[in-house]
Amino acid sequence: MGGPLDNSDKIRELEEELRHTLKKSEKKIAQFTTLTELSTVLNSTLDQEEVRERAMQAATRLMNCEVSSLLLLDNDSHELYFEVALGDKGEKVKEIRLQVGEGIAGWVAKHGEPLLIADVVNDERHFRKADEKSKFVTRDMLCVPLKVKNKVIGVLEAINKLEGEVFNDEDLELFILLANQVAIAVDNARLYKELRETFLQTAEALADAIEKRDPYTGGHTKRVVRYSTAISEYIGIDPSEKESLKISAILHDIGKIGIEDIVLRKPSRLSKEEFEEMKKHPVLGHEIMGKILQLRDVIPGMRYHHERCDGKGYPDGLTCDEIPLIARIIAVADAFDAMTTDRPYRKGLDMDTAVEELERCSGKQFDEHIVRAFVRAYREGHIFNG
Amino acid sequence: MGGPLDNSDKIRELEEELRHTLKKSEKKIAQFTTLTELSTVLNSTLDQEEVRERAMQAATRLMNCEVSSLLLLDNDSHELYFEVALGDKGEKVKEIRLQVGEGIAGWVAKHGEPLLIADVVNDERHFRKADEKSKFVTRDMLCVPLKVKNKVIGVLEAINKLEGEVFNDEDLELFILLANQVAIAVDNARLYKELRETFLQTAEALADAIEKRDPYTGGHTKRVVRYSTAISEYIGIDPSEKESLKISAILHDIGKIGIEDIVLRKPSRLSKEEFEEMKKHPVLGHEIMGKILQLRDVIPGMRYHHERCDGKGYPDGLTCDEIPLIARIIAVADAFDAMTTDRPYRKGLDMDTAVEELERCSGKQFDEHIVRAFVRAYREGHIFNG
Repeated sequence: MGGPLDNSDKIRELEEELRHTLKKSEKKIAQFTTLTELSTVLNSTLDQEEVRERAMQAATRLMNCEVSSLLLLDNDSHELYFEVALGDKGEKVKEIRLQVGEGIAGWVAKHGEPLLIADVVNDERHFRKADEKSKFVTRDMLCVPLKVKNKVIGVLEAINKLEGEVFNDEDLELFILLANQVAIAVDNARLYKELRETFLQTAEALADAIEKRDPYTGGHTKRVVRYSTAISEYIGIDPSEKESLKISAILHDIGKIGIEDIVLRKPSRLSKEEFEEMKKHPVLGHEIMGKILQLRDVIPGMRYHHERCDGKGYPDGLTCDEIPLIARIIAVADAFDAMTTDRPYRKGLDMDTAVEELERCSGKQFDEHIVRAFVRAYREGHIFNG
Repeated sequence: MGGPLDNSDKIRELEEELRHTLKKSEKKIAQFTTLTELSTVLNSTLDQEEVRERAMQAATRLMNCEVSSLLLLDNDSHELYFEVALGDKGEKVKEIRLQVGEGIAGWVAKHGEPLLIADVVNDERHFRKADEKSKFVTRDMLCVPLKVKNKVIGVLEAINKLEGEVFNDEDLELFILLANQVAIAVDNARLYKELRETFLQTAEALADAIEKRDPYTGGHTKRVVRYSTAISEYIGIDPSEKESLKISAILHDIGKIGIEDIVLRKPSRLSKEEFEEMKKHPVLGHEIMGKILQLRDVIPGMRYHHERCDGKGYPDGLTCDEIPLIARIIAVADAFDAMTTDRPYRKGLDMDTAVEELERCSGKQFDEHIVRAFVRAYREGHIFNG
């Protein structure tokens, strides 16, 4: 009774099952391979913006969906926020905020539980305003909490699975694994940023306190930092050099801590001897910070910000091509601020006149290239005193 | 002609293949699941020691092997180094160093290529001395480079696969994926540590410069940091509070930046008015740093290190249970250093006498608990002036 026939059915069945098993296994392994790769990409930066960008790209790619969102929790306001790029890059970015509890993402943040919603439009938690604003149609969605040490720090969403499919439970499982990696990468970037800010703010606070010994220079350091940063936007400078410039601008005058009150706080013009004493501050600053290995690229701005292109500056009488870039930038920012602020024995110049003065001294005292950048920044409204 | 027979062979074959495929797939998925989990664990700390520890545990677990090693590259000496725990935890850790190019790990670091060695004993690259020293027998081994931005930063080894097996190419593939995660976690921890050190060193350098205005207190800040740290080893204090204590001890006197030369540098005893002026420094310090959110746990040590348990201190006349812990610690460290250093108008006490003085004032000026900790630290040789 049909043994061979039954057998060939059985064989077809087994072959089919084998094909299916292989296909499923290959798909799963491919997904894991992608997940592992994405985890490497996610964690190989500590830059907050970059991590967020990579997290959304990773979600879109791994889940094969139309779009992804990363919403972070603002602990102070108890809101979720995310930045949406409007149109092409370069255009303004808009921040959208959502109360915890509000919408699907708000529900997930509140309950700390993941959601798979196959029919978003008919889900009562759906926050329609966002779709209306963006004219985007949300069909199906995965929404999972980002947790660090059991605390929700945000929410990751994958929206509209591609190729006519709808998200399923296996997708959700995979997405949760990605979310774990994203949570860690986001948190590491936050910790790094907080430490960096603590460092910069501490340096600023101390520089500010040191500056306050001299009652005639209120706010000088802050303005030099701002002018230097503005200049750096108009010249080719890489991010790490920009960071060194900022730190150096903050610390450029800290050598003044070694100048006595009697010289530093003198309300009238300095005598020749007093001026020689005052001129020690770049070297003193170098000495104070010189042992800190990680600040080796910062020191030149402290030591050389009173050098001049024509070699008539101090302490080393360097010429233009010998003076490090960040020192040439700080020199212009520093001189502009000195010219535009009042001293007890003279009134400060107005800004237009000070700019003319910079241009007059360009190529002699200052690097022409830097003065040009400063003038462009000034004309475009990026140099302001206040 | 045996059709049914052939068919049942075929069925057995297919069933066998299906079982095999399923088993292989399950194993692979289990490995990837473990890898994903380990990657989460690895990246969820920025503490260097912790990352190294977790990396070795991850390698041993994922590769199912007897032992794992993580060797890091010292760029200055061009050596690989690793720390080996000798015996039970708590015992001393020994550092082993290896030239790049030396041994199997040295070969991998030099060439930047992974190695699978099934028979280590007969491999000419094998560095026998390490085995001889540790009396460990290395049979088979996976050794892969840790790379960040294409630069080798170290080497990860898995040694002696368990359960009678020998490492194969699939193991090597999996191990390379783990090594990628380890490389990133190690590098992130390094970047975080470097930033933290830059912050602490900058704060120290500035505190040191501020301290140098007062010619009679050379090295005071450094000693207060050291004494405070020693005390903290003898009381229950969590790691984050210990970190705050260190930063606070570094910054405790920075308010002196706001005290005029004429008071600060006076070589004789201060008048009542001058002393009142000097007494402003804790509040000035608080004001300088008060805006820095991340330093909120550091400020109390600056503001309250001149408070006394009996309420007779300044600036706020707090009593013992109102004075934050880190301030009570710095108070003892600060007073001990003041007593044991010379002033132009008096000679410093010897350390034994100063300790007696602390004990005499215990419960009145100082927290008894802190004085007891200090005395223990002193008797066990952890308080030294130098």
